[in-house]
Amino acid sequence: MSTGSAGVRPAAREGDSRPRPARPGPAELTAAALAGDRRAVARLISLVEHESAALREVSALLAPHTGRARVVGLTGAPGVGKSTSTSALVGAYRAQGLRVGVLAIDPSSPFTGGALLGDRVRMVEHATDPGVFVRSLATRGSLGGLSWATPQALRVLDAAGFDVVLVETVGVGQAEVDIASLADTTLVLIAPGMGDGIQAAKAGIMEIADLLVVNKADRPGADHTCRDLAAAIRMSGSDSRAGTATGSPDGWRPEVLRLEAVTGQGLPELVAAIGRHHSWLEESGELARRRLRRAGEEISQIALAGLRARLGALDEGGRLARLAEAVTEGRLDPYTAADTLLRELPRSRTVGS
Amino acid sequence: MSTGSAGVRPAAREGDSRPRPARPGPAELTAAALAGDRRAVARLISLVEHESAALREVSALLAPHTGRARVVGLTGAPGVGKSTSTSALVGAYRAQGLRVGVLAIDPSSPFTGGALLGDRVRMVEHATDPGVFVRSLATRGSLGGLSWATPQALRVLDAAGFDVVLVETVGVGQAEVDIASLADTTLVLIAPGMGDGIQAAKAGIMEIADLLVVNKADRPGADHTCRDLAAAIRMSGSDSRAGTATGSPDGWRPEVLRLEAVTGQGLPELVAAIGRHHSWLEESGELARRRLRRAGEEISQIALAGLRARLGALDEGGRLARLAEAVTEGRLDPYTAADTLLRELPRSRTVGS
Repeated sequence: MSTGSAGVRPAAREGDSRPRPARPGPAELTAAALAGDRRAVARLISLVEHESAALREVSALLAPHTGRARVVGLTGAPGVGKSTSTSALVGAYRAQGLRVGVLAIDPSSPFTGGALLGDRVRMVEHATDPGVFVRSLATRGSLGGLSWATPQALRVLDAAGFDVVLVETVGVGQAEVDIASLADTTLVLIAPGMGDGIQAAKAGIMEIADLLVVNKADRPGADHTCRDLAAAIRMSGSDSRAGTATGSPDGWRPEVLRLEAVTGQGLPELVAAIGRHHSWLEESGELARRRLRRAGEEISQIALAGLRARLGALDEGGRLARLAEAVTEGRLDPYTAADTLLRELPRSRTVGS
Repeated sequence: MSTGSAGVRPAAREGDSRPRPARPGPAELTAAALAGDRRAVARLISLVEHESAALREVSALLAPHTGRARVVGLTGAPGVGKSTSTSALVGAYRAQGLRVGVLAIDPSSPFTGGALLGDRVRMVEHATDPGVFVRSLATRGSLGGLSWATPQALRVLDAAGFDVVLVETVGVGQAEVDIASLADTTLVLIAPGMGDGIQAAKAGIMEIADLLVVNKADRPGADHTCRDLAAAIRMSGSDSRAGTATGSPDGWRPEVLRLEAVTGQGLPELVAAIGRHHSWLEESGELARRRLRRAGEEISQIALAGLRARLGALDEGGRLARLAEAVTEGRLDPYTAADTLLRELPRSRTVGS
């Protein structure tokens, strides 16, 4: 269970009778993943996550097969029931015959350990289902954002033919914003009675939520929370994220939905709402715009990472340390130091090489 | 009051009898700030915060005068009493005759509005003290981190002769990490009875805290919280941040201190502990190491911002949009797209120009 997807492996191994070389290359792995081999999918994601040298080759091989999966992001504060809700959605989409991938980027997720037994039991149920692929991704360092590998892992699942990919992430700081730029539809989960956290988060929530899901809707205060959120939506007066794109009169306004993820109460309504949002995305042209933005951001991130690596190379050579010393001694200001560093930046033809 | 330092201006104006041109240039402003003119300090920080074209010139003029101020960071969850503690520390350092600067990077800070009347009253008291300079800095966008202008604003206060600079920031996500890399001494504030938040944050806290301050120590549960934190320190077994530098046997272990910021109970002990930590920083050589790291990070950030601006220029030219389109259509993978982008990256001799 240490990799978060290991629970899946025995089933995949049993169902897979082809002989396999000890170390398949990127091309073989990609071909196997495209053919639906879950072990190959898992290994490709590992490869992507560990910034393997084969990353570029894999990325190129996957490219023609991407762009089909619907991406649904789930975010919210710790304790709102993200994992239970994810699990419930997996069940609902499986009942429709869809293949579902789950990427969990959350240190408190049951996929990475530390959750209640009930959550584990529910996910284990899905883990033996060959139409479900669950994978946890470590957050990188203390950046608080999504793992940079998330978009790449998403491309792997997309290319491998998963119809829906659920991306679950704890709703704190940068990750919350990242998820909105990654997902087609972003669900922000809220639990009743979480007090001033809701107040504080309201502005941020309104910016990123396509659907506001009040989970644990059987709890006292659920009505109040729903009214509160509905009022906030009216007051914000915006057409959600669509407003940033075109400000079209047929913009999407976030809906407030009630859910009891544990019992499944409200689940059909949530699935229907996600469907409505997706139809709106397609019809309004917003889906294409969001995906263009996502690709643009992904390219920029990779380019920046490459530039950062080149800066890092100078760092290792001691150049940065000498400049930093000059700055601490007041002989140089940081801007002039940065100029000096950039003038020495090596040009390389490929990112990360 | 709109800029967060305006309350200070009338006093500064009265005390400043020199004739002043309507629009002093960067050189005049810097000279005035170095001579202790608080209005000039405020204007320099504005200039720095708004990425004025004069930023580079100012930075170069300040450089020879920096490196003297002690930087104390205060962080913690909303509601732990950061602003009240900051205010209490200002009073304590003023009583020692030291000049104190405050940089508040916190949307819920009284300096930016939205706090209790009591806090405002206490800070207003300091605001009329010519030995205190208070400034709020906006957080940039939704990045959750410190404003990038923070290190620059710090340099302004440092050069202007403030002996201690207190940097107050809400302890969420990236800001918490940033403050630790910026400050000589980092205080993490905790309030009793904040429940599982403490548990969740513990690992992060141990990494960044030089001193753990249990504020509102008169509240029920304070003893429990103190014991809890002391146990966590013992269990972590690390020598705090010093361990990352040399692992020296005389490393610093975070201390747990009790404070009632409102009454001042525990304040002398806190000031003494900050002093002990500073002595340790100097004697162990850790101060020099931290400042070198800080300068290195600052240079890297500026260099990266410059590179990002160059990428942005390509973006504006539509190049990124065309590459993103190719990626969404599966004709290109994002790595190859990033390579293409980087090959077209303009080289410029100075950052941001």
